[in-house]
This record gives sequence, structure tokens and C-alpha cells, in this order.
Amino acid sequence: MTADLEAESLARRVADAMRGADAATTGAGVELVEVGPGRALARLVVERRHVNGHGLCHGGYLFLLADAAFAYACNSYGTPTVAAGAEITFLRPGKLGDELRAEARVRAAAGRTGVYDVTIRVGDAVVAEFRGHSREVPSMPQPPGV
Amino acid sequence: MTADLEAESLARRVADAMRGADAATTGAGVELVEVGPGRALARLVVERRHVNGHGLCHGGYLFLLADAAFAYACNSYGTPTVAAGAEITFLRPGKLGDELRAEARVRAAAGRTGVYDVTIRVGDAVVAEFRGHSREVPSMPQPPGV
Amino acid sequence: MTADLEAESLARRVADAMRGADAATTGAGVELVEVGPGRALARLVVERRHVNGHGLCHGGYLFLLADAAFAYACNSYGTPTVAAGAEITFLRPGKLGDELRAEARVRAAAGRTGVYDVTIRVGDAVVAEFRGHSREVPSMPQPPGV
Amino acid sequence: MTADLEAESLARRVADAMRGADAATTGAGVELVEVGPGRALARLVVERRHVNGHGLCHGGYLFLLADAAFAYACNSYGTPTVAAGAEITFLRPGKLGDELRAEARVRAAAGRTGVYDVTIRVGDAVVAEFRGHSREVPSMPQPPGV
Repeated sequence: MTADLEAESLARRVADAMRGADAATTGAGVELVEVGPGRALARLVVERRHVNGHGLCHGGYLFLLADAAFAYACNSYGTPTVAAGAEITFLRPGKLGDELRAEARVRAAAGRTGVYDVTIRVGDAVVAEFRGHSREVPSMPQPPGV
Repeated sequence: MTADLEAESLARRVADAMRGADAATTGAGVELVEVGPGRALARLVVERRHVNGHGLCHGGYLFLLADAAFAYACNSYGTPTVAAGAEITFLRPGKLGDELRAEARVRAAAGRTGVYDVTIRVGDAVVAEFRGHSREVPSMPQPPGV
Repeated sequence: MTADLEAESLARRVADAMRGADAATTGAGVELVEVGPGRALARLVVERRHVNGHGLCHGGYLFLLADAAFAYACNSYGTPTVAAGAEITFLRPGKLGDELRAEARVRAAAGRTGVYDVTIRVGDAVVAEFRGHSREVPSMPQPPGV
Repeated sequence: MTADLEAESLARRVADAMRGADAATTGAGVELVEVGPGRALARLVVERRHVNGHGLCHGGYLFLLADAAFAYACNSYGTPTVAAGAEITFLRPGKLGDELRAEARVRAAAGRTGVYDVTIRVGDAVVAEFRGHSREVPSMPQPPGV
């Protein structure tokens, strides 16, 4: 296997193990669509439980979706990594029934610190922009199965 | 009624109307404890559905809790107000069974823009610090009952 | 002139007028290298006045450089636009004598709100990542000469 | 000397050493007014070199002022500490001749990470709110004289 294929395979193996161990993400309705080194695509279809009285997706679930894509992306290299923090900008509402797609991508890294961008879209329209700050914690155990 | 009591009463009336209209917040397990002009206290007991495989509360639910307290606080003056964005810093994990308390407080305002701080604690220990950016939208309808 | 050429020409005209009117940016040593619709490239050579006792560029000047590139980029469409806020992550130090290059690019927009990314590099190494939040203020006067 | 007095004295000793070693901060016009454990007050009078064509203080210098107060506050405990990042919200303009006062205060800390709030005011009016993220680097040398 080439180095590239190995990196892709490692990213998928980590993501599978994370999914198995993370009831919160899957329970909230987030699905992982794709993952690779430094990137991930996740989706959430906006259900009644995600919306407020105006039929608009709660900002908390937009954050949760972006945060999940971020977590898959920043753990994809095989070193256990946690979120130190994040910021999110809300640009357009997500509506009941919308399919939200969150695309995470590494932007920069130095030492144990990483910066990741996540864009949430409905079709081509940007719903929210998220920037995540990650920190590698090599001493933390991997989820079982990696 | 004095101006102070009226302000307190308005904050509670808005919060009651928001709660009635917001299935997402209550459905996620967030309870409003207290509300007043420019401030709110909300709580979440960390259940199995909120945690990952390590028994730690998902960052998405920490954000959702803080965001809910922020929403109550920034709508408390009676003008419909939305979140433009927010940033969160994760300092300590929330664990299965923990009672998380999120205290929101206005920090500064100018024109239609507001800055709010939300601190999430378990007992006295700070779990996360959240800063929310609000924007008044006077043309937006109030939730029914205000 | 095609629409594209007109957009490029407008961006340059606005940037020239801004530079003429902005003693702070040029006085701090920031030079505009390139500008176009939704983008700008600015540079700063780190001088003695920019560094602390370790010979490292003060974070305030890194921010000032990124903020200047952001201002050129978000005003490039011809509507007066101000910074509502920004966040910066410091990844590597800038050193005395380094040529810092700040590349600004629009990331998303909705209504009067825009999100811009600015990356500061020395050569290929990322020194800082900046995210700016802009707000159009059509009622604000343009700098003279636009 | 009591523990409290020792903490105050240490904060002042570190700040004096930092000032001596930091040409950038003092050269930009920032003065330290007061410092203690986890807090600092700095000031900047807005001069011609700090303003743009509208006579308004450049956001870069507002950031620099807040960042300087943050640096004094987060180094006040005696452990060398750097800024990992920061976010700033601009609420009102600072004008030529204004005396800007930046008050920094620790908000929360966990492990080597700290969260600091800095408010910039002119009189009682809030000009900007800044939140800084610090990271202790015990291996880094102190400025001479501590």
C-alpha cells in the first residue's frame, strides 16, 4: 500500500472507532459521509427535535455537526486529539428538512496545535462558518479498534 | 410596579414564551433556572445520550447549553435578538451524571450589537467559557405569549 | 472593459484611496502588494520597533498586518465596510528581519456580513491565522478619490 | 511579607522586566498603569500615527493595547506565558486624542491554559472587548531582572 492509501485507510479506521464509541454524535443524527487525512464530511438532516418554534435549526446543533466533522478531521492522522475551542459564525438559518453538510479541512498546524475550518452548507448556500482549535494529546488512549 | 420589577417580569415572560416555542433546547435536556435583564442561568444534567465513549460530555452539548443561556439573556430586554456567532473554550471535561450550570451575563452593547459571557461550571470548577455575539432584529416576530 | 476587469480596477481604486487616507497602516510599515475583488496581499518587514526583547514580532503588529489586508479585501467591492471583530491564532513567531506576507480572502457572505480568512506566512511557514468579521455600512462616506 | 503582598510584588517585578525588554509595546505608546496577580491596566492616548483618514484609531492599535494588558496580566504569576490567540469585538471608535484604558483580568484557568478578558474603555464607554487565550511555557526564559 502506498503512503497515501495508508493515510486514507488510517483516517477511516480512526473514524470508524470514534463512531462506535461516540453515542452523542450519532444519537444527535450526525452521519459521517467521508473522511481522509486532515478532512471529513458529515451530514445532518434537520428534524423536528433540532428546531425551535420558527422551524429553524438550533445553533447548538449546527455547532454539534461542525464539531463532529472537526473531530473526525483532526483525529484522522492517528494521534489522539481534542478540541481546545472553536468559534462559529451563523450566516443563514437551517430549516426543518434541510440536509446540512459540514466539510472540515485542516488549515494550519504547528507543534501539537492545529487550526481547522468547517463550512456548513445547504446545497451551495453557506449556513455557518466554524473554526476549530485542536490540541494533540498523545498520552490519551485511542478508541478501541484503531 | 417599579421599573426594575417590570424589567424582571418582562425577562421572565420572554423566557417562558421562548421555552414554549423551542423544542430543541428543552428536548436536549436544558432547563432554565433563572432569568433577568441581561442574564440567565440554565442547567443540563449529563445523560448517556450526551456523552462519548469515554463518558465525557460532547462539546456540541456544552455549546448548546451555553447558547441557550445566551439566548435567554440577550432576548430578556424584549427586543427579538439572534446569535450572530460565538466562541467557546473547553477547559475541563463534563462527565456522565454531572450537573452543568451555565451562567450568562451581558458584558457590553453598542447599537444593535451585544457581547455576552457564559461560564459553564460543575460545582465551582469551570468547564467552559463561551462568548456570544448578539444582534437585535426588531422586525422579527416575538414568540407567542410575550 | 469587461465586468471582471472593472471589478479589479474598482478594488485597486478603493485600495489606493484607503492607503492615502490611512496613516496608521502605512506608518506601521505595512505595504499593500496586490488587491482584487474579495482579496488582498499585504507585507511587513519586521523591524526593531516591531519586536520585543527576544527579537520576536509583537502579536499586536501581526494583528495590525492581518487587519490591514482584511480591510483592503472587504472594501474591495466598493461598499464601505468595517471590521466588527476578528480572531487570531499565533502559530509561529515572526523574527526581526522576516518578511511577513498576509493573504486575505473572502470566505463567505450573507446580507451585510462577511467572513474573511487571512493567513500570515514567512516563506511557506504559517505564522498566524486570522478570521475577520466584516459589516457593510453603505451610509459611510468613501475615502476621497474612489 | 504576606502571600498577597508577595504576589503583588512579583507581578510588578515581572511587568517591569517585560517593559524593559519590550520596545514594541512602549514604542507604540502603550503605558502600564497598574498590575497585580492576574490583572493589569494599560493606557494609550490616540495620536496621529494611530489613526486613519477619519481620525479613528486603527483596530490594529486597539488590539495591540489589549494584547499588551493581557500579556502583563497572564505573566503576573511568574511563569513565562505566551498568547496562543485572541479575539476582539469592536463596539465604538476610539478617536484622535482619546485616552484608551485597557483593563485585563483573568477569567478562568486549567492546566497550562488561561482565559483573560480585556475591556478597552474611553471614560465609561466600551470601545472594544478582547478575550485572550494564554499558554504557560515554563521552559521559556524570563526577561532579565525577574
